[in-house]
Amino acid sequence: MLKYIGTQELQQYLAHHPLEQVIGELSTYIEADYRRWPQFEKTARLAAHSTLGVIELMPISDGTLYAFKYVNGHPRNTHQGLLTVTAFGVLADVDTGYPRLLSELTLSTALRTAATSVLAARYLARRDSHTMALVGNGAQSEFQAIAFHALLGIDELRVFDVDPGASAKLCRNLAAYPALRVIQAGSVAEAVRGADIVTTVTADKRRSTVLDAGLLEAGMHLNAVGGDCPGKTELAPAVLEAARVVVEFEPQSRIEGEVQQMPADFPVTELWSVLTGAAPGRTSAQEITLFDSVGFALEDFSALRYLDAHLGHGFHQSIDLIPAPADAKDLYRVALGGSKISSVPRAARANA
Amino acid sequence: MLKYIGTQELQQYLAHHPLEQVIGELSTYIEADYRRWPQFEKTARLAAHSTLGVIELMPISDGTLYAFKYVNGHPRNTHQGLLTVTAFGVLADVDTGYPRLLSELTLSTALRTAATSVLAARYLARRDSHTMALVGNGAQSEFQAIAFHALLGIDELRVFDVDPGASAKLCRNLAAYPALRVIQAGSVAEAVRGADIVTTVTADKRRSTVLDAGLLEAGMHLNAVGGDCPGKTELAPAVLEAARVVVEFEPQSRIEGEVQQMPADFPVTELWSVLTGAAPGRTSAQEITLFDSVGFALEDFSALRYLDAHLGHGFHQSIDLIPAPADAKDLYRVALGGSKISSVPRAARANA
Repeated sequence: MLKYIGTQELQQYLAHHPLEQVIGELSTYIEADYRRWPQFEKTARLAAHSTLGVIELMPISDGTLYAFKYVNGHPRNTHQGLLTVTAFGVLADVDTGYPRLLSELTLSTALRTAATSVLAARYLARRDSHTMALVGNGAQSEFQAIAFHALLGIDELRVFDVDPGASAKLCRNLAAYPALRVIQAGSVAEAVRGADIVTTVTADKRRSTVLDAGLLEAGMHLNAVGGDCPGKTELAPAVLEAARVVVEFEPQSRIEGEVQQMPADFPVTELWSVLTGAAPGRTSAQEITLFDSVGFALEDFSALRYLDAHLGHGFHQSIDLIPAPADAKDLYRVALGGSKISSVPRAARANA
Repeated sequence: MLKYIGTQELQQYLAHHPLEQVIGELSTYIEADYRRWPQFEKTARLAAHSTLGVIELMPISDGTLYAFKYVNGHPRNTHQGLLTVTAFGVLADVDTGYPRLLSELTLSTALRTAATSVLAARYLARRDSHTMALVGNGAQSEFQAIAFHALLGIDELRVFDVDPGASAKLCRNLAAYPALRVIQAGSVAEAVRGADIVTTVTADKRRSTVLDAGLLEAGMHLNAVGGDCPGKTELAPAVLEAARVVVEFEPQSRIEGEVQQMPADFPVTELWSVLTGAAPGRTSAQEITLFDSVGFALEDFSALRYLDAHLGHGFHQSIDLIPAPADAKDLYRVALGGSKISSVPRAARANA
């Protein structure tokens, strides 16, 4: 039987483990996996594009474990009360091909994206950073805010969204963090002015310009999370020209990241080499750095490893997705297993 | 909530619907989808190879529905009591990216493979075919036997496997079909001699020669199911040279099928064009035809459509793989949903 972690199981786990602690632990798993980058078989994700969005499959393997995530991105979904991003994934054994864990990854994607943003910022933002602009106040925003506050020392947040209702929602939710001063800005410019870090988490299936070069200030770290597929960007090209750009997996980011707007030889650095010290992090107080985040399968591999390890012994169900026949060459007998005269035992089902 | 069809749900369905009827209905769905081939966005599957096997993701979309299957192939798994092939898949809506059905596909793969084999044979084998050789008597074999007997009129089956225990198992299982005469052959040659159709469903991760050209007879139809990835074939190259070869999706079959052994310009015909009449089926009684089957995502798309339509109103569970927040921009509130003070309603869980 396969382990199953649904929304309910993760909610139960989070009721006993604070979000910021989970994001911090995830960050550790993600860093450990990025640091052993050469061990992974890496490929750009398989994307099926349509007018309204994209559905992607993101596989990766380290030779022992195989993982993949299914994820969609449909910016207009919220108009019909649906999430812009939903996801789920599976962790499997390479030697047998058997899946071992099926898990929700909608919540977990928000957690691992924030964890990766903080991980990158640890190496790229100025050490004394304490103010962050947060542009885009939708589903991802609380996770980014909490991660940067609890794990990187951000104590002032300037939030902005074209939907004032979203900003109000974010402010309400962050009231639980009294040490974080939250200011609702009237524009992107107002949010960004004087900020150490600028996080953009907007959703729009086009080449938008949330941030233009005129808003840049020396020493800023830009955490560009929202743009993440061809034709979907947040930053004006001049912003990239002014910054040192760090990406996750270059072949994928050339297609999907902000750098899709630049020539193919525009210099970028992969995150793993910054983490291992092969490439420098921030090189001066004046430097403008950009983490051009699109989401890479390694982060979901880490998340699934984390879920398997931390929730796999209490906060999970069993699911009969894969049959367990008495004779592995007799699948036919499994097919007949539902008949009254069959001797195949019924699969046990754990109750909620 | 997502619909879930596990092993148990499919067993219950099959207890009320005979295997041969289900395979026949699947065959109809598969033919209908192959006939609208140009509507599908097609890609070769994403394969992660290892010494012991392969794990593949097989996505496909017709612009309205998106489907993918996860499947593994590990020929040595049976040595440890595990299935050689396990699988599961998801059907999703293209316009929202939301998955609608998660289903077991281990049993369903055996069903849809047999359905596709019969579909191809309907156009390629001689009309008066009544004897079939079945080489490889493992997990797939009963489904092939039952499909060809019930849907194509095969009344004599000559079975062979290097493992006599597997042959004995197959013979025992087919005793439920008294109109099918089953003969246990002492060799491949004995099984194949005088057969109208030869089905090979062996599992060995190498270039083996189950069938060599010396065993071919005029008019035979070869249903080559076992070989299905690079370095894994069943037929000697001379067999392909003697036959008219039909494949599912040429770009994928050039890599994975028996035709991987031939030059890149070796002529093949795609199955869809035979089904629509754009290319001929069998052209003479003497012709040797070969359906070089590897498994294509369209067949799983059809299977998932079938499962959604036929089991989706009674033989399924609900699963909380994707959250359903009250406010689609407030995923944070879902994360807090497990706490006692939360007002988010608990996801309902249907019991077995």
